[in-house]
Amino acid sequence: MTTAPGPERRRGRGPRGAGADTRGDILVAAAAGFSEHGYAGTSMRAIARAAGVDPALVRHYFDSKAELFIAAMRPAQPDDARLLALVSAPRDQVGTRLIALFLELWDDPSLGPRMRGILLSAMTTPEVASAVQTVLIRDVVLRLARDDHKEMRAGAAASQLMGLAAARYLIGVPAVVQASRAELVAVYGPTLQRYLQGELDLEG
Amino acid sequence: MTTAPGPERRRGRGPRGAGADTRGDILVAAAAGFSEHGYAGTSMRAIARAAGVDPALVRHYFDSKAELFIAAMRPAQPDDARLLALVSAPRDQVGTRLIALFLELWDDPSLGPRMRGILLSAMTTPEVASAVQTVLIRDVVLRLARDDHKEMRAGAAASQLMGLAAARYLIGVPAVVQASRAELVAVYGPTLQRYLQGELDLEG
Repeated sequence: MTTAPGPERRRGRGPRGAGADTRGDILVAAAAGFSEHGYAGTSMRAIARAAGVDPALVRHYFDSKAELFIAAMRPAQPDDARLLALVSAPRDQVGTRLIALFLELWDDPSLGPRMRGILLSAMTTPEVASAVQTVLIRDVVLRLARDDHKEMRAGAAASQLMGLAAARYLIGVPAVVQASRAELVAVYGPTLQRYLQGELDLEG
Repeated sequence: MTTAPGPERRRGRGPRGAGADTRGDILVAAAAGFSEHGYAGTSMRAIARAAGVDPALVRHYFDSKAELFIAAMRPAQPDDARLLALVSAPRDQVGTRLIALFLELWDDPSLGPRMRGILLSAMTTPEVASAVQTVLIRDVVLRLARDDHKEMRAGAAASQLMGLAAARYLIGVPAVVQASRAELVAVYGPTLQRYLQGELDLEG
């Protein structure tokens, strides 16, 4: 990222006011910084500098670096149309539709590298781990789970999604890398459907 | 790790000969080094020094750092009695028995931290990723999989095991952390059984 022209150009828009998309500028600068330098290598101060805003303004919008990281790197906001369609899908289709959307986002070349960065940071950085649970579990899988053992259902579904992402996009297990999306939906859809809506035999 | 007394003590055993467990000494030094400094932070030269042997001897036993890492850190050798019992288990029980053994190894306080180190390094270091596939897929899950779509079955099972490990031991998804081993066997056993031996509906 070339930081020199960025802030100048942004500052050139004039003084911050109700019309300036300060939050948006911060998110753009944060995504660029995190993508290039990783979570640990990017400070909120550096993001403020790249966005051409005062560090206090970054803290005004985002309570913590982890919150900013997730907001900048997440592939879909909670009100994303695809997420809303998934949440309102018939309950007997949520497994298939969840895995299909998950693969669609990861296979998107503009989103995949970000999601890879999030998953890796989540495994090594506790505050990111906590934020990922917000994005993946609270905002998505928990909304698809049956009420009995709801948290266990969501956790199991999240574990399979993270494991698939690790095998396909981080570790590179050949059969999982080479499989088509349709094949992966056939393999993983029934698993997610059972975790979210089926019988888990947790009692007796 | 206190390196000073270690090598002296080992050197004190006398000259290396047919009776000296040189390979074993290297493995002990490697496990200590990798556990303390991680994969990237540990060189084969440093391991040789800690084991009190010539670096060429380390290379005599292990072709690469990744091979030494896996040999030193893996929770069970390929001829481990528990693995052999799993491989010879009735085919309709392999899912349940695989997840039970996996949790037994990860929950062992002397093995869990090593497995955590392996999984993390596999996600960030391609040569470790490749070695992990040897340990988890070739030596274990592939031997439990039905012949049709054998590689896909093994990859799917490995992805669920890695995702469970990530959720329970790295990211700390509360419901997955708090679940008993019996509950996790009830949730994940049927998934692994289907991946390894059930119908995947990959054609038609």
